[in-house]
Amino acid sequence: MYGPACRMRSIGMTVRAAFRSVETRFVMTLLPIRLACAALITGLALSGAAVQAQSRSSAVRQEPIQPIPTPVIKNQAMVDLGKQLFFDPRLSRSGFISCNSCHNLGMGGTDNLKASVGHNWQKGGINSPTVLNSSMSIAQFWDGRAKDLREQAGGPIANPAEMASSHELAISVLASIPGYRATFKQVFKKDEITIDQVTEALAAFEEALVTPNSRFDKWLRGDDKALSAEELAGYELFKNSGCVACHNGPAAGGTSFQKMGLVQPYQTSHEAQGRAGVTGKDVDRMTFKVPTLRNVELTYPYFHDGEAPTLRDAVDLMGRLQLGREFSQKENDQIVAFLKTLTGDQPKLVMPILPPSSDKTPRPEPFKRGN
Amino acid sequence: MYGPACRMRSIGMTVRAAFRSVETRFVMTLLPIRLACAALITGLALSGAAVQAQSRSSAVRQEPIQPIPTPVIKNQAMVDLGKQLFFDPRLSRSGFISCNSCHNLGMGGTDNLKASVGHNWQKGGINSPTVLNSSMSIAQFWDGRAKDLREQAGGPIANPAEMASSHELAISVLASIPGYRATFKQVFKKDEITIDQVTEALAAFEEALVTPNSRFDKWLRGDDKALSAEELAGYELFKNSGCVACHNGPAAGGTSFQKMGLVQPYQTSHEAQGRAGVTGKDVDRMTFKVPTLRNVELTYPYFHDGEAPTLRDAVDLMGRLQLGREFSQKENDQIVAFLKTLTGDQPKLVMPILPPSSDKTPRPEPFKRGN
Repeated sequence: MYGPACRMRSIGMTVRAAFRSVETRFVMTLLPIRLACAALITGLALSGAAVQAQSRSSAVRQEPIQPIPTPVIKNQAMVDLGKQLFFDPRLSRSGFISCNSCHNLGMGGTDNLKASVGHNWQKGGINSPTVLNSSMSIAQFWDGRAKDLREQAGGPIANPAEMASSHELAISVLASIPGYRATFKQVFKKDEITIDQVTEALAAFEEALVTPNSRFDKWLRGDDKALSAEELAGYELFKNSGCVACHNGPAAGGTSFQKMGLVQPYQTSHEAQGRAGVTGKDVDRMTFKVPTLRNVELTYPYFHDGEAPTLRDAVDLMGRLQLGREFSQKENDQIVAFLKTLTGDQPKLVMPILPPSSDKTPRPEPFKRGN
Repeated sequence: MYGPACRMRSIGMTVRAAFRSVETRFVMTLLPIRLACAALITGLALSGAAVQAQSRSSAVRQEPIQPIPTPVIKNQAMVDLGKQLFFDPRLSRSGFISCNSCHNLGMGGTDNLKASVGHNWQKGGINSPTVLNSSMSIAQFWDGRAKDLREQAGGPIANPAEMASSHELAISVLASIPGYRATFKQVFKKDEITIDQVTEALAAFEEALVTPNSRFDKWLRGDDKALSAEELAGYELFKNSGCVACHNGPAAGGTSFQKMGLVQPYQTSHEAQGRAGVTGKDVDRMTFKVPTLRNVELTYPYFHDGEAPTLRDAVDLMGRLQLGREFSQKENDQIVAFLKTLTGDQPKLVMPILPPSSDKTPRPEPFKRGN
């Protein structure tokens, strides 16, 4: 009876590789999803590395959303290099746009714009998803066209509408900078800098961008006082009404692709067609990766087109489109109150000092014609 | 004989107010300026608060450039608020441009572009000067049209070619954000947020952006091994050939306005006319504030129009245009080597987490027509 919607499972950071090969698609035929389903989801979660994580903290409640695990930094030097690259606008043709421009780590890992600003002030094609906790996603980009963060990181650098550089130009810039040459050599033990090294370092930094210790996670770990009655009511409603069928796992999302407009079609003039652009299948039209709800209070506006300016709007539309349910004002308030408990500790980052260009570094030319 | 060029003096952070009312203009009739002048400059520096700073470190060498004093933070809460504002793109109409976009604290407080990128990808009219140690300047902007950092801070927010907001819009955005309302109230003890508070907090943050402990400062404080023979030779040349006549004080600049093209006219098609735009006087045409040389290795490209891509180019042109002197390759190398010793400790900043907008916050509209 609970069918495919229950095939979801928790994705711990350490087990996400296992999921990369599995494209889990859910066609929810029975709504709303009930608590029994949530219990089954949790049961499925208790396998492999997830069990290991779980057993370290025996007090964790059995819920379809699990606490964000503290990241384990394997290679601090690589993470530090990735941080420099993340903040370095010289990876763009203009010298003006860095990863942090659209995934601002002071603003929940997003730019808080409906559509991002790209090279030459071009309007971005899709709302910038948060980079926070993004390593816990089944794939990257709204349409999942990159299998992981490494594959994602190369995209915007060379996208003519975003950073508008090329991998060749980006590498020639980095290789001309003595400070970068030394750091790459220290990290990768090779003389040559490659785009694979760049994306590996960026991904290593991004994997460290997790947000543990939200109030909800404290509650999950047994602190009964971490949530108010209203927030708890919101969470119960979130589970009972079916939101959790898609928004589950440590990131409260990112575990599956779903059709936007399941019960009612989503009325939009936006050009994005979702996963169909990757698979070429008509059945995937308007199917997008379910976004994480972690820090959702900070990552407005919402949806792939940024059309929902507030959490209230987003909850209302999700209820009607995905669940065939109209939440009352009180219910909406409760769910929004719960969602705000998902804001965790934001990464505490010392801003990197970027190594200066040398006389040989190709200069950015933001205003060159034909750019 | 050493005339007006010797009227320069050191500007300690605590005494800069005294200089705001004095517009010091130097018309250098005798070049090159010799060491005797430098000694006189140093003598003049030993007055008031400067003496106090000096006496705390009796080992400081008597030179026309003084060590950067460690900043004294009077109001940490205000500095922290200023840091948030400095990094907040919501002060711009687009929601995409913050103070840090053009005064990037990971890149020497500049954008390392000839001309900055403004709202709608407009080309900026002048090279972005560094914000580092800017509190030590006689005035702000290349043409000195703002008397201090507070007066400066309001400019770019409302400049249609830069952040393109208005003071009214910026205040209405801030006042709609509960996190900012609480912090402003805590810092200023008032219910209402005003633009004066915004610029006061920004200035307080910027006053903390100083870069002490450069190798040159270590040498100034008595560490004989801090500089190599080449660097020392470069400094001697810098003094002997007259560079120090304009580049003096703790910031190695920022103490006077000077004509660009003193001995030979500066050939340019750039529209900037310098101080004449402020005073309306023809004599001030092409007169600009002397930029600081602190961290000059990081603040390329050089001059008000960014036309000198490298330090080598800048030293060469300054020699010919301002001093009537053609530096040999070896001399140029020595001066550049000295200049690179002026790079100090860059501000170690934990990136601020910005308080989220509320449902009532006016949304940025980067792509709205007519913007």
